[in-house]
Amino acid sequence: MAAFTPLTYHQRAHNDLLSSFIGTASARPRRFSAARIRMSLQESAPSLAVVGVTGAVGQEFLSVLSDRDFPYRSIKMLASKRSAGKHVMFQGQDYVVQELTHDSFQGVDIALFSAGGSISKEFGPIAVRKGSIVVDNSSAFRMDENVPLVIPEVNPEEMAGIKVGKGKGALIANPNCSTIICLMAATPLHRHAKVVRMVVSTYQAASGAGAAAMEELVLQTREVLEGKPPTCNIFKQQYAFNLFSHNAPVLSNGYNEEEMKLVKETRKIWNNKDVKVTATCIRVPVMRAHAESVNLQFEEPLDEETAREILKNAPGVVVIDDRAANRFPTPLEVSNKDDVAVGRIRRDVSQDGDTGLDIFVCGDQIRKGAALNAVQIAELLL
Amino acid sequence: MAAFTPLTYHQRAHNDLLSSFIGTASARPRRFSAARIRMSLQESAPSLAVVGVTGAVGQEFLSVLSDRDFPYRSIKMLASKRSAGKHVMFQGQDYVVQELTHDSFQGVDIALFSAGGSISKEFGPIAVRKGSIVVDNSSAFRMDENVPLVIPEVNPEEMAGIKVGKGKGALIANPNCSTIICLMAATPLHRHAKVVRMVVSTYQAASGAGAAAMEELVLQTREVLEGKPPTCNIFKQQYAFNLFSHNAPVLSNGYNEEEMKLVKETRKIWNNKDVKVTATCIRVPVMRAHAESVNLQFEEPLDEETAREILKNAPGVVVIDDRAANRFPTPLEVSNKDDVAVGRIRRDVSQDGDTGLDIFVCGDQIRKGAALNAVQIAELLL
Repeated sequence: MAAFTPLTYHQRAHNDLLSSFIGTASARPRRFSAARIRMSLQESAPSLAVVGVTGAVGQEFLSVLSDRDFPYRSIKMLASKRSAGKHVMFQGQDYVVQELTHDSFQGVDIALFSAGGSISKEFGPIAVRKGSIVVDNSSAFRMDENVPLVIPEVNPEEMAGIKVGKGKGALIANPNCSTIICLMAATPLHRHAKVVRMVVSTYQAASGAGAAAMEELVLQTREVLEGKPPTCNIFKQQYAFNLFSHNAPVLSNGYNEEEMKLVKETRKIWNNKDVKVTATCIRVPVMRAHAESVNLQFEEPLDEETAREILKNAPGVVVIDDRAANRFPTPLEVSNKDDVAVGRIRRDVSQDGDTGLDIFVCGDQIRKGAALNAVQIAELLL
Repeated sequence: MAAFTPLTYHQRAHNDLLSSFIGTASARPRRFSAARIRMSLQESAPSLAVVGVTGAVGQEFLSVLSDRDFPYRSIKMLASKRSAGKHVMFQGQDYVVQELTHDSFQGVDIALFSAGGSISKEFGPIAVRKGSIVVDNSSAFRMDENVPLVIPEVNPEEMAGIKVGKGKGALIANPNCSTIICLMAATPLHRHAKVVRMVVSTYQAASGAGAAAMEELVLQTREVLEGKPPTCNIFKQQYAFNLFSHNAPVLSNGYNEEEMKLVKETRKIWNNKDVKVTATCIRVPVMRAHAESVNLQFEEPLDEETAREILKNAPGVVVIDDRAANRFPTPLEVSNKDDVAVGRIRRDVSQDGDTGLDIFVCGDQIRKGAALNAVQIAELLL
């Protein structure tokens, strides 16, 4: 429908802006070579399903599958009744979005879920019973002791034995975006000197609340610049030129759910009940990449230079730490990128000796914080 | 000149927006009653000088002097040669800005400086020799052991004996904005349970880099929304919908100057060389109020409820901590306000017992972070 409505200049600017932030195919060059399509479409390859395909993360699933030449025999585009019938393009082919039902998973080897916790709770187990391996981006099963919580660069061993072709369904949980981005940088240091305590403050982008939140930030910003009152639908307060404590519900201990995910998921992923973590999660008016200020206390000494070398050699991590040029990671710079960027690596002057470090981390919330990590998990299933 | 140029709608929206952020008289209601003017203009009152009157902080000096009915016999509006001849309105009267010279301080009792470190270094001592008491908002003299570094709610005793009318000049330094905002909340808790270590992550507004930086943020944001490349004059990278490590120079220990101000100024203001502080300072796309995530370690136990009561009773502090409504301090809410807002008050789950707290603080960078604190210091001189 919208496609047939002529857009005003502002609507077009708005949409171009969003697509560039959301990173849909229109915004980023795709290499849809015939070779790639041949490469990906293999009879022996798994059949895929993407649940929540019309959402920001769902769209990113498709981008990442394409970018990584993920092999597949077939792919089902699934979403809510509301989105059923929409068309999505994938690797040069047009697909009609189907409504998610209890019968959607017949013959599906791998199902990538990103449609919210309640959808995962209802349809995840159904898919597993049908023999699908579900990679779930929601928080529904993360703390379930029978469900591996995996960052492929950190704890791939947790999903040992779960493979496509064994005819056995399974659930694998994708950690929360803030946890993934933080641990991509903290884990290589933890392996070397053992983290005993971590104090994290986040600078979280709109994308974490979905595409509608990104659109609201753009709309609000335009309204504020024009001296109009900001429209508050997704968030209950002004987001443009402002920031606020993360909108997740606050628990009885005073932490919000987002913060406790960092605390609990870190313990599970590191398989270490003793690691002490505190976090303060803040939503900032940035589009799609999170930043985190991380203060680390180690059991063993770890000097700054060794830490920098460890991080330079860490998979999925890029070090941007140019003190002379005052050039360090920014959310904009990592947007639409796979790697998590780390900088501001320095000895913590508030700790004795070499047992403390401060670092600053940025990562694309939709990509490594969600879709990329899930697709990397799926790659381990082949 | 600009006043005679007809403004486009966008220019007007832009200017209204800026003035509302910068908080000039046009944006905030002033009570210019004859009574007030009578009250302020007293023969026995001090003669004032405002150095850097055309800057964001200089303008705020005038707003605060007016809001607080600061008594004065006369007031000199001083600025660089470039700004000399401009007109400023103050308490219903029109003043012509004079060029700052070595002779500017003849007969001046109190001089409020906010024109940068080099101007303070050159003209501060000259003013003192003329018998003026200089309240300096720059970093020029903050760490000089002979210069009191004062937050009136925290360490007024440091300026004991310095009074107008004794015919003796003196220098008093205004702490850095991030330090003032942090210590307004941390000090009442420190007095009760003694802070041994503090981990601070800041979310700093454009105003810290001056009015031109605020204008650049507005301009860049408009450009990005219109799909144009952002203009980068003040900052060397995109600020709109982005954030970056504070632009202060990075020192050999890897901390930038802004961060080390928090470390060193805290020790001086608390007169405690042992307090351990680390900070990570980040510039976020917010206009004029800073936010800070502060993790505190205490020597003595301090439970959450006691901390909340202490902060509720602290002068210049307001507690906004509604967990059920997820309502906590925001930069927008404290903009143009005197009080520093504190919320997210909770026991730190990463520390044993009741010796750790996390708090989130917001304060107006131009007001309590600069102009208000300086005028409060001046009030102590009377």
